[in-house]
Amino acid sequence: MDFTEEQSADVVAASFDTMPDPRLKEVMQSAVRHLHSFVREVRPTTAEWEQAIEFLTAVGKACTDTRQEFILFSDTMGVSMLVETINGAKGDLPEGDGLRPTAPTVLGPFHLTESPVRELGELINTTGEGTPLVVEGRVTDLQGKAIPGARVDTWHADGEGWYDVQEQGGLPAGTGRGLFTADDEGYYWYRSVMPRYYPIPVDGPAGDLVVRAGREPYRPAHLHFIIEAEGYQPVTTHAFVSDCEYIERDVVFAVKSALIRDFVVVDDDAQAERFGVSAPFRYVRFDVVLAPEEGSAPAAP
Amino acid sequence: MDFTEEQSADVVAASFDTMPDPRLKEVMQSAVRHLHSFVREVRPTTAEWEQAIEFLTAVGKACTDTRQEFILFSDTMGVSMLVETINGAKGDLPEGDGLRPTAPTVLGPFHLTESPVRELGELINTTGEGTPLVVEGRVTDLQGKAIPGARVDTWHADGEGWYDVQEQGGLPAGTGRGLFTADDEGYYWYRSVMPRYYPIPVDGPAGDLVVRAGREPYRPAHLHFIIEAEGYQPVTTHAFVSDCEYIERDVVFAVKSALIRDFVVVDDDAQAERFGVSAPFRYVRFDVVLAPEEGSAPAAP
Repeated sequence: MDFTEEQSADVVAASFDTMPDPRLKEVMQSAVRHLHSFVREVRPTTAEWEQAIEFLTAVGKACTDTRQEFILFSDTMGVSMLVETINGAKGDLPEGDGLRPTAPTVLGPFHLTESPVRELGELINTTGEGTPLVVEGRVTDLQGKAIPGARVDTWHADGEGWYDVQEQGGLPAGTGRGLFTADDEGYYWYRSVMPRYYPIPVDGPAGDLVVRAGREPYRPAHLHFIIEAEGYQPVTTHAFVSDCEYIERDVVFAVKSALIRDFVVVDDDAQAERFGVSAPFRYVRFDVVLAPEEGSAPAAP
Repeated sequence: MDFTEEQSADVVAASFDTMPDPRLKEVMQSAVRHLHSFVREVRPTTAEWEQAIEFLTAVGKACTDTRQEFILFSDTMGVSMLVETINGAKGDLPEGDGLRPTAPTVLGPFHLTESPVRELGELINTTGEGTPLVVEGRVTDLQGKAIPGARVDTWHADGEGWYDVQEQGGLPAGTGRGLFTADDEGYYWYRSVMPRYYPIPVDGPAGDLVVRAGREPYRPAHLHFIIEAEGYQPVTTHAFVSDCEYIERDVVFAVKSALIRDFVVVDDDAQAERFGVSAPFRYVRFDVVLAPEEGSAPAAP
């Protein structure tokens, strides 16, 4: 009957044997075993256990309608990225002779509002500040065939590193955010301003732990995308700016080499006129490849 | 540079290499490795990860000044008891030819207030309800020598399973609670009422998970103790009631066989008169053995 270090995981895991939901039972029993392994390894003092309780309580208390500190903790512990990697594993594998589907990465905490519906080519940041940016690309299937009408949801920080949902940036709602519909060739494009790298919030317990660890709390500059089309698996991803100083040390581990793009400096008035921006501007091409829905037949030719 | 399932734990653990506090570095790197092992084993979907985030957030939000839901979660996952067992390991080992120190068990969530200072023999529950109880014992060292003036802090539920700090019980503050000083022989005693088994709070996420698992949310009847004396290691422990129906299935795994006592039914007017209670009453003897402070010399004879 006595609770011992050696048997604790078995005894507690067995207490979940009666769980009617088989998946939740599996998850809880695995959680018990890994949690007890961790405790047996680090052998916390009672005071250290109390500190852990206080930390987790503070993370919970920092969560509000506009802030999710547990997601931030998951992000900075690499757990969000691991979950994305597990669920999007096929994105890293060649599929027959075709193209690889675009690799997924983290959603991040700033997709809190619906992006405004926009026309192709629309300027999504009208503040007049920052370096002009032109983004274009095509959405195709694994054979490179256009996916007409694909939905391209995009959002990104401004030239100071702020999203519209962050009060500190003072940006009008919808700035740097747009929901586009690709044309019959699967083509999309829009105009905006170059995003800057930015720090995660460090005024809460998750960010504070990162700072105490001596880690740099920055995310390299990037554009967010969710791309969806009927009959295809949606992808949540980023286009990373290749020359950003933080490209090799993203605090949430989200960079994948397949997602890094050169945001080319174009100092050419003819090109600028073609896109309706002023020179010099930055230009990036971000093509997206979607895998078919699992179990679905390929679309008829 | 790419984040892979195989390398995720190494990459994230390495991000804590710069942590200046060596102990926190060790704890965080171990936490990363065990957390990533858990995720790789259960392979959560994105929706399941979101459910986990919501659960942890709800646990944090349930914490108030008078309620600690993360401690309850730690208790029901057997983590609190594992930490107690690790820190009190010597309590389970014979020490030379002497006595074994009294084994520790969980503090529990109801030691929220200071116990009122009481005289030996005082009645600590004056509500007039419940079965009378007499508790007595001696506090000694490993050689069985009295520890005069040992402090005996005790608290326990009433005959309905309520503590004074729980609003629902309607008990006056200090009921079932007392801080006693052992006499020159290390002897202490007090009068109270028999405690009943009770359910942990099931109106929050931690208790809800226990109920969903089909686990019985009960703690078997017990008396809490913290016993301290200068020059000795304090012990936080329970005396468990042997004939309680939940003695073999404590929801927080805190029962140790060395802590189970018969709470004898005494139906004898002479005995009742001796202790100043009415017959029939219950009687328990709970002797306590304290280990010397680590690094301290034994007291002079």
